[in-house]
Amino acid sequence: MKKFNVAIAGATGAVGTEMIRVLEERNFPIGELRLLASKRSAGKEVMFKGQAVVVQELTKESFKNIDIALFSAGGSRSKEFAPIAVQDGALVIDNSSAFRMDPKVPLVVPEINPDAAKEHQGIIANPNCTTIIMGVALYPIHQHNPIKRIDIASYQAVSGAGAVAVEELKNQQKAAVQGQSASAEVFKHVIVNNVFSHDSDILENGFNQEEMKMVNETHKIFANDSIQVCPTCVRVPIERAHSEAIHIQLQNPVDLKQIKSWLSDAPGIYLQDDAAQNHFPMPLDVSGKDDVAVGRLRKDLFNSNAMSLFVCGDQLLKGAALNAVQIAELFV
Amino acid sequence: MKKFNVAIAGATGAVGTEMIRVLEERNFPIGELRLLASKRSAGKEVMFKGQAVVVQELTKESFKNIDIALFSAGGSRSKEFAPIAVQDGALVIDNSSAFRMDPKVPLVVPEINPDAAKEHQGIIANPNCTTIIMGVALYPIHQHNPIKRIDIASYQAVSGAGAVAVEELKNQQKAAVQGQSASAEVFKHVIVNNVFSHDSDILENGFNQEEMKMVNETHKIFANDSIQVCPTCVRVPIERAHSEAIHIQLQNPVDLKQIKSWLSDAPGIYLQDDAAQNHFPMPLDVSGKDDVAVGRLRKDLFNSNAMSLFVCGDQLLKGAALNAVQIAELFV
Repeated sequence: MKKFNVAIAGATGAVGTEMIRVLEERNFPIGELRLLASKRSAGKEVMFKGQAVVVQELTKESFKNIDIALFSAGGSRSKEFAPIAVQDGALVIDNSSAFRMDPKVPLVVPEINPDAAKEHQGIIANPNCTTIIMGVALYPIHQHNPIKRIDIASYQAVSGAGAVAVEELKNQQKAAVQGQSASAEVFKHVIVNNVFSHDSDILENGFNQEEMKMVNETHKIFANDSIQVCPTCVRVPIERAHSEAIHIQLQNPVDLKQIKSWLSDAPGIYLQDDAAQNHFPMPLDVSGKDDVAVGRLRKDLFNSNAMSLFVCGDQLLKGAALNAVQIAELFV
Repeated sequence: MKKFNVAIAGATGAVGTEMIRVLEERNFPIGELRLLASKRSAGKEVMFKGQAVVVQELTKESFKNIDIALFSAGGSRSKEFAPIAVQDGALVIDNSSAFRMDPKVPLVVPEINPDAAKEHQGIIANPNCTTIIMGVALYPIHQHNPIKRIDIASYQAVSGAGAVAVEELKNQQKAAVQGQSASAEVFKHVIVNNVFSHDSDILENGFNQEEMKMVNETHKIFANDSIQVCPTCVRVPIERAHSEAIHIQLQNPVDLKQIKSWLSDAPGIYLQDDAAQNHFPMPLDVSGKDDVAVGRLRKDLFNSNAMSLFVCGDQLLKGAALNAVQIAELFV
């Protein structure tokens, strides 16, 4: 079996760390694993399949003899180094938002649009985490009963803002337990015992960047610009996994039995819909898990073509690292 | 000025405690304040206007010479004792769900339907907390541009489940900080670092009781059964104040400037809509405050008659104790 030389740019970040774990867990056919990070992290050792790999500084020379380069080092580093990696012959799978809406760059969720990946010109973009988690849950429905509108409110974990945000939450939990006042540095507001509108910039239309990613990226992944997407993105004081309260309007009447069977047969998701035990998708259940949990399926009380559901997925895995590695696997 | 003898049934609970505070703060014209609770709490002393009031056991004899009885001791106690209080000549304002949908009982939010209170036959019901908070924010819009549909996802604090739930959250935060596993007793699931579907029972139609309260009580308070209400109610790991991501469809096109001016002029709410500072309604800002915060006002991207907003209110105050006292004030 052919082996691939794989580079990870941003190897010491929250997503990069998961990428290494996912590559090992899925036994990706790796020749050389090259871990790249900022100068500050260069020299660190990271274990991979029982062997220590020394982290190197990310430079223009980093991508010689690399087959696949996974980027998760922020948009500006992707913009600077991805074209160099492509020129050196690597296939870039980029987790940043830098190239997602570039018409020359496929935006891929393997459960939804694997064929789009084939059209790449060197770079394939990994979608926004909240968008991926929603997409894998809704696509099995959309295939059979097209979705006309999506209203979605998110409950997003702080780890979406990186390891420093998790540290901040923990420090604030500690302060709260000790009855001290908490201070915020990573976020603009204290997150412990609080929720707040997503920390991305607000655009002219009143939506924030995270929300507009959900609108635009869903259109691109579903290859359908006519779907009305209306998101509200909110941070909640939890470490890991994003939840989404979703309402959808479909083209045809909702048959819940059919919907459940479509979802049960679909890849990358599982049904968690236990009304008797009041056990529905929860962040603690899906943290560290590959699959997205789907539940609270119920028909709209007033519109026979509409329904609600609740979705929960590990945004560092299916929302980022796992999805990126799955894209790479399309080429193995 | 006439003084009123006021009884509080459930005086030592989370809401009862706030009722005492609100009565004092608003200088309600009280003759006698009679604090009632279970046998277990009888004998405790509670300070009111600098004087110790001894808590008495709630019995059938508790309501002699009482003018106004505020109930917040659970539905079964309301069902048992409210009719007795009425027979003894008291006006009952009941915070439980026991009488809310009874056609003979007005369901009142003073900012919305104060006139309904006049129709009482001894009992006036205080609506569900999540419903009140949504109602005061939406009614100023509805008055000018009727609301046809409401989609709402909630972010509900644990104190809605009582003081024991707050204690449980604190214990779990402590365990999380110490790296220990947390155990759940009040709720079915661990709440720290987690969110879960509201802990009320799931009905045949897939909605939980909290959600159906929002549907039915909104119809009754707004005196309009045709409004489509579609809620998803969710607990988040915070102590106090409920948040709601709301999307509304209106009869006529949305003019945001108009909407803002209607909201600015409305009682019981304030605008918190600072896009530059990413400062929108947050639980920490409204905890202990009377008014409901409203923000993130934005027009729908696809439907000119629709818009989104984010609302946050102290569910123990405007969602319960304050609203009950405001109802009492209608009779002063």
